[in-house]
Amino acid sequence: MATAPSVSYSITVRLEVPASGTAVGRLTTAVESSGGSVTGLDVTASGHEKLRIDVTIAATSTEHADEIVGKLRSIEGVAIGKVSDRTFLMHLGGKIEMQSKHPIRNRDDLSMIYTPGVARVCMAIAENPEDARRLTIKRNSVAVVTDGSAVLGLGNIGPKAALPVMEGKAALFKRFAGIDAWPLCLDTQDTDQIVEIVKAIAPGFAGINLEDISAPRCFEIEARLREALDIPVFHDDQHGTAIVVLAALTNALRCVGKEIGAVRVVMSGAGAAGTAILKLLTAAGVKHAVVADIHGVVHAERDDIKADGDAPSGSALRWIADNTNPEGVTGTLKEAVVGADVFIGVSAPNVLDGSDIARMADGSIVFALANPDPEVDPGAATEHAAVVATGRSDFPNQINNVLVFPGVFRGLLDAQSRTVNTEMMLAAARALASVVGDGELNPNYIIPSVFNDKVAGAVAGAVRDAAKAQGPAVAPAGRGPMPA
Amino acid sequence: MATAPSVSYSITVRLEVPASGTAVGRLTTAVESSGGSVTGLDVTASGHEKLRIDVTIAATSTEHADEIVGKLRSIEGVAIGKVSDRTFLMHLGGKIEMQSKHPIRNRDDLSMIYTPGVARVCMAIAENPEDARRLTIKRNSVAVVTDGSAVLGLGNIGPKAALPVMEGKAALFKRFAGIDAWPLCLDTQDTDQIVEIVKAIAPGFAGINLEDISAPRCFEIEARLREALDIPVFHDDQHGTAIVVLAALTNALRCVGKEIGAVRVVMSGAGAAGTAILKLLTAAGVKHAVVADIHGVVHAERDDIKADGDAPSGSALRWIADNTNPEGVTGTLKEAVVGADVFIGVSAPNVLDGSDIARMADGSIVFALANPDPEVDPGAATEHAAVVATGRSDFPNQINNVLVFPGVFRGLLDAQSRTVNTEMMLAAARALASVVGDGELNPNYIIPSVFNDKVAGAVAGAVRDAAKAQGPAVAPAGRGPMPA
Repeated sequence: MATAPSVSYSITVRLEVPASGTAVGRLTTAVESSGGSVTGLDVTASGHEKLRIDVTIAATSTEHADEIVGKLRSIEGVAIGKVSDRTFLMHLGGKIEMQSKHPIRNRDDLSMIYTPGVARVCMAIAENPEDARRLTIKRNSVAVVTDGSAVLGLGNIGPKAALPVMEGKAALFKRFAGIDAWPLCLDTQDTDQIVEIVKAIAPGFAGINLEDISAPRCFEIEARLREALDIPVFHDDQHGTAIVVLAALTNALRCVGKEIGAVRVVMSGAGAAGTAILKLLTAAGVKHAVVADIHGVVHAERDDIKADGDAPSGSALRWIADNTNPEGVTGTLKEAVVGADVFIGVSAPNVLDGSDIARMADGSIVFALANPDPEVDPGAATEHAAVVATGRSDFPNQINNVLVFPGVFRGLLDAQSRTVNTEMMLAAARALASVVGDGELNPNYIIPSVFNDKVAGAVAGAVRDAAKAQGPAVAPAGRGPMPA
Repeated sequence: MATAPSVSYSITVRLEVPASGTAVGRLTTAVESSGGSVTGLDVTASGHEKLRIDVTIAATSTEHADEIVGKLRSIEGVAIGKVSDRTFLMHLGGKIEMQSKHPIRNRDDLSMIYTPGVARVCMAIAENPEDARRLTIKRNSVAVVTDGSAVLGLGNIGPKAALPVMEGKAALFKRFAGIDAWPLCLDTQDTDQIVEIVKAIAPGFAGINLEDISAPRCFEIEARLREALDIPVFHDDQHGTAIVVLAALTNALRCVGKEIGAVRVVMSGAGAAGTAILKLLTAAGVKHAVVADIHGVVHAERDDIKADGDAPSGSALRWIADNTNPEGVTGTLKEAVVGADVFIGVSAPNVLDGSDIARMADGSIVFALANPDPEVDPGAATEHAAVVATGRSDFPNQINNVLVFPGVFRGLLDAQSRTVNTEMMLAAARALASVVGDGELNPNYIIPSVFNDKVAGAVAGAVRDAAKAQGPAVAPAGRGPMPA
């Protein structure tokens, strides 16, 4: 499957060409014959003899962009100047900033925003700590916390290299839900330290979004923080993914006319996302699920899982063995998908091919979410499956967490929720699925676009209502957190 | 000294009055006869019989505001509606927010700001971590860190109640130096934990501003963090105060024509600010300093300081005993100020009176910085001293850290400095002092206004130059921090 030129590999090349002759006309030809795409051509200076032109070009990779520049250089009369990478330009100095909500023009402003006026507000909060949710940024702030151990598909690249992702996440929180998020990239990968640090920074935030923390540490960190804190803790890689998958599956099942309790689901991947998806699907009514990891189908008798095997009791793999595969299926992933209604991949590229999809049940559903290369070529899958979805933006049905986390946190913050639980996640998935109306639903549109402006509001409203239905979110003045 | 009505105790009272008759006219009279001040009167609805009026009133305290409302209520025909407190209104939902620098309008924007484009930026930083200062918010971000243990003059009010101060500080960082600061209010007051937490969150920031952490923990926390981190750590309560005091003293000495190495300085207060002031004054050339705390003058033979006394070796009090008072003065503060050239108070209200100031040397300088009530009534001090400064905004010569911390951090960030040291602080003080030109200098103008727009740039430039003079700030690509 060839990759199309993309704006994420977009460069702007400044070049000088003779004012007369054919050089200008040959620029576009050169780019397109190299497989690139000219997305902009601006003459930035013009004289009798020379033109200065900025050409913006989409390529398929960094190497491809270099190759195109070489092609341009070889045109007679063309002099290449500065080559800028649009994505890097956008990152210069960072993508987010802090802003004051009020102007500070004079002494009066200063005396209300800062000393001495601020002292009265501090004392009001000291007397009633719940007022922090009314009188401070706590009301609308989320910490985006990572240790840089599992960033995108890039692996353990550390806290500094993770920062661009966390800034992007913060920008999305604001764009889609008006939330003020700030990245905290931690210079430790020790579970105890991370728990201690997040507990300590919690007073200034109304929610914690854990991000790109590797399994299995992410499970323990999240569980301990949920226990310790009176604000919701949400690991987006797990639960954001699970919610969007459940929403997409709900609509895919509407398309093919099957019931969630009747379908046989086969999953590839038993990491953080896989485990969370499985738990949420189970809560939503899936009864027949089989999971395969790199060692094949997970079952209680597998050597590494048996009571005397490697998988510690309480581990995710042990949970999967105990809660899936009631029929005791063994063998490989390829064997397990035969006759299955649903395949969900959160694992690695090309673990299946078209012939595997052909052996699934009629009206099969394939979610191949590995990025950038899916578990099965989506073109091949579409030949045999009724519904195909991927994590990619250049195919229909993109399964994207951006559909979920902004609305989920908006709902939690609006409800001043002290927690986030399965009921709220199920409500979020139902709300997201319902954005696609009966008149719109079809196999190429099971999930709305990330730019559909109904999404965040629908998800937020459902989560808020579910959170409020749990009873009073906020403890009475002067009291601690609600008893469980 | 009566306090004047202030905008920091400003309320807006909505009331209804008969359209005819004298009630409207009596509103202002009632407020002013109660000692308040009407700063705005808006008719927000008008009919044949009734007017709805919003009256904005400056009072001297919360109780005073209540009293004024009572007075308004007693005017015949006046019905009082909602009473809003302007300072609290300004704090609703917090004073700062996060903003994205780039719009996210479409798929192209998303693919550069977030996935997949962001991955290339992450990999560039993973290969060369120093690029985080170029391609992320690290370049311009400062963490404002507190444990809420010594907030303003309010004491140990905890992290949530400290948040309004930290938000205000962040707003000032932006207003005066374009810096993106974010508050981190920690739910721990354990020295080891605070050190560990700040070390861990450092990757995303170019500087740490410690704030309102009580002594003596603040000394150890700052020292350990400076040792551990490759970004500057600055405790504003100590060093910000020290720099502005040194700048003011420099100009006060210019006024009275005395040399810094020749004057006798008496300080009241041996806490965080006092110790830092003393150290910086010593570095600037002060040779004769005596410090008094609540137990009187600090000297090496005092019972609580002697080798077998309470003060641990390495403590601030021990440092003061070892580095001040070469003549071995003993006794009380009042005794020590007799004949002194300079009094600097960072302690408690009204420890001196006019007669004490009268006994100082000719051309004496008095900095009475306790807030809101100075060590000596500034009116009384002015009768005897040549130069008087306070921390208050309603007297000339306000000694205010806002003059310092924005410019200091701007300079440190511009130089990508890995540290902040005495040389840089001295440079900041010199630059701040020099903003007051020879033609402007007089005993009522030794320090510029916080709204003087030359201040931050002058301080930043001096600090940047001093930081760059320390040698290359940034380690070569792929290298760790510079050796000390």
